[in-house]
Amino acid sequence: MKATAIENDPVCFYGVGVGPGDPELITLKAARIIESSEVICYLANKEGHSQSKGIAHVHIHSTHIELPIYMPMSDDPTVGSAVYDEAAMAIGNYLMQGKSVVFLCEGDPLFFGSFSYLLERLAEHYTCEVIPGIASPNGASARLQKPLTMLKESFAVISGRHTDSHIVHTLNNFESVVIMKAGRNRVRILNLLKETNREADAHYLEYIGRDNEKIIEDISLLEKEAGPYFSLFVVLSNKRQRHD
Amino acid sequence: MKATAIENDPVCFYGVGVGPGDPELITLKAARIIESSEVICYLANKEGHSQSKGIAHVHIHSTHIELPIYMPMSDDPTVGSAVYDEAAMAIGNYLMQGKSVVFLCEGDPLFFGSFSYLLERLAEHYTCEVIPGIASPNGASARLQKPLTMLKESFAVISGRHTDSHIVHTLNNFESVVIMKAGRNRVRILNLLKETNREADAHYLEYIGRDNEKIIEDISLLEKEAGPYFSLFVVLSNKRQRHD
Repeated sequence: MKATAIENDPVCFYGVGVGPGDPELITLKAARIIESSEVICYLANKEGHSQSKGIAHVHIHSTHIELPIYMPMSDDPTVGSAVYDEAAMAIGNYLMQGKSVVFLCEGDPLFFGSFSYLLERLAEHYTCEVIPGIASPNGASARLQKPLTMLKESFAVISGRHTDSHIVHTLNNFESVVIMKAGRNRVRILNLLKETNREADAHYLEYIGRDNEKIIEDISLLEKEAGPYFSLFVVLSNKRQRHD
Repeated sequence: MKATAIENDPVCFYGVGVGPGDPELITLKAARIIESSEVICYLANKEGHSQSKGIAHVHIHSTHIELPIYMPMSDDPTVGSAVYDEAAMAIGNYLMQGKSVVFLCEGDPLFFGSFSYLLERLAEHYTCEVIPGIASPNGASARLQKPLTMLKESFAVISGRHTDSHIVHTLNNFESVVIMKAGRNRVRILNLLKETNREADAHYLEYIGRDNEKIIEDISLLEKEAGPYFSLFVVLSNKRQRHD
């Protein structure tokens, strides 16, 4: 049974997108909901560092209860699954106490994010709401000042986790392509961009809008080695014509 | 030559995304820049109605200079081109006078938007900055509370302007597909969803986050007729498995 509303303020599990990195790219709604909720939950590494908390930190106050979820680096899916089970239980306990819980998400909560795994565990039992955020492809194109898509162009998003053949096929068939989670797969992606003759169309970005942001417009200058998790390639059409 | 900064406040042409419809889904940065700029520019129809101005209206004050751009409905590209030429000239005049100009964009400025046509005309001559906004696919998935993409899924965005074969190919090859600008092409898209056996995966939304929002999760209930410009289909994988 879903938790019922108390007075006018429904107890809710919120997935809140905090945008691609610049703390000012949080929406008015996200800021309001973070500030008015009792519990702030986020993924953290074992040193306690959290990218999403860092972006939202000015909205987090000493009266907030913080619920960090420690996610170990592991390729074993059962490890992640156990962590999400435990986190969902902890979040559910706060909701049962009448406390609203915000889960902070880099970018947008439902775009390649961990929030989906919590939502699927909690949606049947509690009132949930999703506050969308600016996804990294939009953050990236704004920093590049280049259109992600125009008129009849088509646009695809894939990730470094895809197979060579899927990446090649997409690069050959879509004008605009964003390749997310490029870090560990950077060398492989550079080779596939060369193979599909799209090196000149490609730009590379990491930590968009953060102090350590890096933008490499000419990827022939990019080191052929692995990069950080928060990195992506933006591949754009070079056949664009002026609308005149 | 680019217009130079006056004191600490650079004169700038801003493309500002106002998000998918809910006025609270504007970013803190967008609100600040709208409020502090002298000139507010937006597309309007011949009755003077503007979707983007409607979303941002609480940030527009009586001291703002408003610059509506009237865009006639026309399939002739030279008509649009002449309108953008004239608008770029008017914007440039304000920038030369030391006034910053904001161009309001529904969703994200560089995602299927008109801002690109102004940017290409003004970027060589003036300082420009793009403030990204929440694009409609992210707004739509938040309202549906369904992930747009998870893990190894791939995601494509096409529009009702694409050919049948391109739409069919994309529906057959990508787990998640958003079809933008579905209005005039709604009947054709419904037929292509049937042909590719993806009717059960598809959801339909129009005017996301606005008072006249319409969400149809089961598209067999959708009238087989044209719809409004601000409408889209979200097609999601039905093969998702719990991460456990």
